[in-house]
Amino acid sequence: MHTKEQHSKQTKPIENDCFLRALNRQPVDRTPIWVMRQAGRYLPEYLKVRAQAGSFMNLCRTPELAAEVTLQPVNRFALDASIVFSDILVVADVMGCDLHFVEGEGPQMRKPIRSAADLKACVQPDVQETLSYVMDTIRLVKQGLNQRVPLIGFSGSPWTVACYAVEGSGSREFSVIKSMLYRDPALLHSILAAIQKVTAEYLLAQVEAGVDVLMIFDTWGSLLSPTLYQHFDLHYVRPIIAAIKAKAPHIPVIFFTKGGGLWLETQADLGCAALGLDWTVSLKDARARVGNRVALQGNLDPSALLGSPESIEQAVQAVLADFGPGNGHIFNLGHGIQKETPPEHLQHCIEAVHRYSPAYHQGV
Amino acid sequence: MHTKEQHSKQTKPIENDCFLRALNRQPVDRTPIWVMRQAGRYLPEYLKVRAQAGSFMNLCRTPELAAEVTLQPVNRFALDASIVFSDILVVADVMGCDLHFVEGEGPQMRKPIRSAADLKACVQPDVQETLSYVMDTIRLVKQGLNQRVPLIGFSGSPWTVACYAVEGSGSREFSVIKSMLYRDPALLHSILAAIQKVTAEYLLAQVEAGVDVLMIFDTWGSLLSPTLYQHFDLHYVRPIIAAIKAKAPHIPVIFFTKGGGLWLETQADLGCAALGLDWTVSLKDARARVGNRVALQGNLDPSALLGSPESIEQAVQAVLADFGPGNGHIFNLGHGIQKETPPEHLQHCIEAVHRYSPAYHQGV
Repeated sequence: MHTKEQHSKQTKPIENDCFLRALNRQPVDRTPIWVMRQAGRYLPEYLKVRAQAGSFMNLCRTPELAAEVTLQPVNRFALDASIVFSDILVVADVMGCDLHFVEGEGPQMRKPIRSAADLKACVQPDVQETLSYVMDTIRLVKQGLNQRVPLIGFSGSPWTVACYAVEGSGSREFSVIKSMLYRDPALLHSILAAIQKVTAEYLLAQVEAGVDVLMIFDTWGSLLSPTLYQHFDLHYVRPIIAAIKAKAPHIPVIFFTKGGGLWLETQADLGCAALGLDWTVSLKDARARVGNRVALQGNLDPSALLGSPESIEQAVQAVLADFGPGNGHIFNLGHGIQKETPPEHLQHCIEAVHRYSPAYHQGV
Repeated sequence: MHTKEQHSKQTKPIENDCFLRALNRQPVDRTPIWVMRQAGRYLPEYLKVRAQAGSFMNLCRTPELAAEVTLQPVNRFALDASIVFSDILVVADVMGCDLHFVEGEGPQMRKPIRSAADLKACVQPDVQETLSYVMDTIRLVKQGLNQRVPLIGFSGSPWTVACYAVEGSGSREFSVIKSMLYRDPALLHSILAAIQKVTAEYLLAQVEAGVDVLMIFDTWGSLLSPTLYQHFDLHYVRPIIAAIKAKAPHIPVIFFTKGGGLWLETQADLGCAALGLDWTVSLKDARARVGNRVALQGNLDPSALLGSPESIEQAVQAVLADFGPGNGHIFNLGHGIQKETPPEHLQHCIEAVHRYSPAYHQGV
């Protein structure tokens, strides 16, 4: 293990900066690509380390192993960014929800936050201390990357973290938090404010530890109406982005509401560098709607990687053509890569981006 | 049991026609209201009949009981429409998938359609015969309603029925059918065409049995990209609506893609009378986008009915204000009513629609 000082100061510039340039809507030779959950169950080398760790949370909490799986996809594939291996719910965990993962059932909180008393019992954690395993992972990854590509740190949106913290688990309709929203909105606002505070500190701690980019995953914003999305979701994202802009103005932030394609205009006003898009949105339409305010990241259907090499190539071409010529596109999937995906299919996808995207960057 | 002839010819006009008038964008005194799954588990009288039936499918297949639960909500509440109690998956069942419901797990197909051989083994059912229990239910309900309010018949969209027929059950990502879409699109097109044919016949049989309105539920269209939504979903809905327009031009059709708010313009060109909307869409925006082509049905968040009487009243007012003054709005939830909903909360909702909607219809 190395000390913070050794790794937080990188003097060497990042070698492959096309992801950073695209985030800033600057010219690039080709469209950069990384994929959500690129370190994950579709990779045999991941499964090996995951088995060694015993549990998903042990893997997250063991910096050497978390760093190893973070580096696996960038070592195997020509990806243009790395993303820290962790989970959005570690924030709820250190607030006192006691997170664990049940095989085949997903995340479970032993102590969900369902009342004012539950909230009062929550910890105001020192994230540098309680999430030191994430910071250690970041430092190890930065060392392992040796400035080859940028490293992305991340969190969930307060609304999305609250979905699990209040519900106690994943759910189709999240009826516990939705009930709370209508029955006791003041309580829910207090919970969201508490999560917001910890999330902002957590993201800034990741910057201090060495990440180059931040992403905020808003997986469950689409459970809300347009008005509630403003009041219970974006209202708690905006101050987080403002805090990052104030304290780490050089760090671009990507914001992604899964299923949030109806609300791109308002997302583009959050102050982030880029918006993530799922595959239900046309990149062309999205671009017309957000103008030059933000870069766009996405949006290949993850299921497309289950097709034949030819169909993958066609699907990649369709995404590139949909965005069209110009700057500010980061190729990605519209959601996490599926565990059934053959790794060589991701390889086809990356090669297709390398083959077909340069044409969209000539003379622009 | 009564014969077809006795019930298919209703000479008395429908007493409360505000739902039909709204579907045709004609003036009404107040906004009509019905709610998806209004015959369902939130009603104690439903649970009693459900227990008597033994299983969900037995309830569907026993016309006297299915008619009884269909009538329960219109007998209890001042609803402006009735909807036949059945399931969208009976179409897959009579094609040979062998549908059953597992308690707490939802629909299961004993024989999913996953190959050309599976498709070949499918039956081309005579829906009048194999789904005679639905037609008998419709005739009994029409008798029980005695023209108080219109009766809605329904089906799933071919894509949505295929999601279950191919997958074999519900799913978060429906990765079996999504894989098939990319790996063997020709096979999936054949499956969809087969389901389309049966669905069109089924809906026309419901018209013959006496329904006044038809609704097509497209629960899973939002799994698709904009292009795939055209090719694998709407492509198979359009001929169904055309067949209804040709053979039963007096029957208005409502089309509802859950999560399809990005694609309203193209839905409005299907030839249907109305579009269903979930609560992620602003009715005001939707109205601006579809113009006078269709009426709009929706879109209160079902979770809003878990709030206090005051918050329900406010939420209803917000929906009415969002649509604003004018014709062509049918009040509904944005998805099925939740089983945790206290029945008196639906009563509050209906009363609020009665109280606040007339102001939006004065002088328009």
